[in-house]
Amino acid sequence: MVEISRRGMMLVLSSPSGAGKTSISRRLLAEDDDIVMSVSATTRPPRPGEIDGKDYYFYDPDTFAEMVKNGEFLEHATVFDNSYGTPKKPVWDALDRGQDVLFDVDWQGTRKLRESAREHLVSVFILPPSIDELERRLKGRGQDSDEVVAGRMARAKSEMSHYAEYDYIVVNDDLDASVDSVKAILKAERLNQERQTGLVDFVRGMGVEG
Amino acid sequence: MVEISRRGMMLVLSSPSGAGKTSISRRLLAEDDDIVMSVSATTRPPRPGEIDGKDYYFYDPDTFAEMVKNGEFLEHATVFDNSYGTPKKPVWDALDRGQDVLFDVDWQGTRKLRESAREHLVSVFILPPSIDELERRLKGRGQDSDEVVAGRMARAKSEMSHYAEYDYIVVNDDLDASVDSVKAILKAERLNQERQTGLVDFVRGMGVEG
Repeated sequence: MVEISRRGMMLVLSSPSGAGKTSISRRLLAEDDDIVMSVSATTRPPRPGEIDGKDYYFYDPDTFAEMVKNGEFLEHATVFDNSYGTPKKPVWDALDRGQDVLFDVDWQGTRKLRESAREHLVSVFILPPSIDELERRLKGRGQDSDEVVAGRMARAKSEMSHYAEYDYIVVNDDLDASVDSVKAILKAERLNQERQTGLVDFVRGMGVEG
Repeated sequence: MVEISRRGMMLVLSSPSGAGKTSISRRLLAEDDDIVMSVSATTRPPRPGEIDGKDYYFYDPDTFAEMVKNGEFLEHATVFDNSYGTPKKPVWDALDRGQDVLFDVDWQGTRKLRESAREHLVSVFILPPSIDELERRLKGRGQDSDEVVAGRMARAKSEMSHYAEYDYIVVNDDLDASVDSVKAILKAERLNQERQTGLVDFVRGMGVEG
């Protein structure tokens, strides 16, 4: 087999809660050795069992602030008293090694990633097969009040209103089919000419002037 | 299954002679019901067995000239005494029906198609696995002179020098793997957000404002 070296991509999966994004992400990570989950940094203290560099990068507030100042985050935000962000270096290192990095972020996170790394970004939005199915999933075990469910539905619709900002749309009415769809997107994007950085040398090695 | 209506794409496959493009095209057309081969128009008379509308659209020179004047071709060229071209209407009709149209053209044909229909075009360049393998294939049964083979090699290298003008690159060192690659490109591009024209209504039907 000819192996052409390639630059990895940042694969963003977004969806309203209840559309199946988490199940699809898990399957991808389990079944494809060339994609890894992105790891966020946070200033909140580790919880029992959390591992630095795997669950999060745990930084003290001063270090985090210094990194923000130095532009070392792809995106960052403060939620209540804690800061969260995506450090650039581990992502760039993975892409350079030819690994893809998976991001599970909402439309706002996607916009920030697009601003800071558009050429590496491949964005996929997962839609539910119908509004009734989404509501059924969001009702869960039926122990929540109508108001709570209505709030979830409103948030889901608000998230879905941004679908057109994404490169690809997958309607998830069957988990296996949706995993196959995202795998096809990964496979195709790996064949993208600009991502196959080894092509220049490969073609030159055949005596072809590009 | 939720079916989102979509606009078809124009899938261009180019490669040097001997890289396997024809075998890949045949497999795609045989194994995927949603893609059809583009049919060219020509002013040359039909040969025995050729069917109008299947092998070619056969037009008399006046009709062809009139169509050129009216901008009814995606691209056209005159080779010796005969004119050839790709009529727009059957391609637009197929794309509107949600069918993809396959084009087997060289880098020059691809450029012309890109000029007239960039938003519909998905272009794939097939490379041979090595220059030795390409030469082996171009030597065929070994009945051609060294000069003839050298001429073929020079043309192949000239064609390959345009690989970087294509969206995707597939190195064909195994036919099955290459067919899978082109199928993944097709599947992914069908999930392209802008090509899924039915999404607007689908999402609106869920009460989402886009």
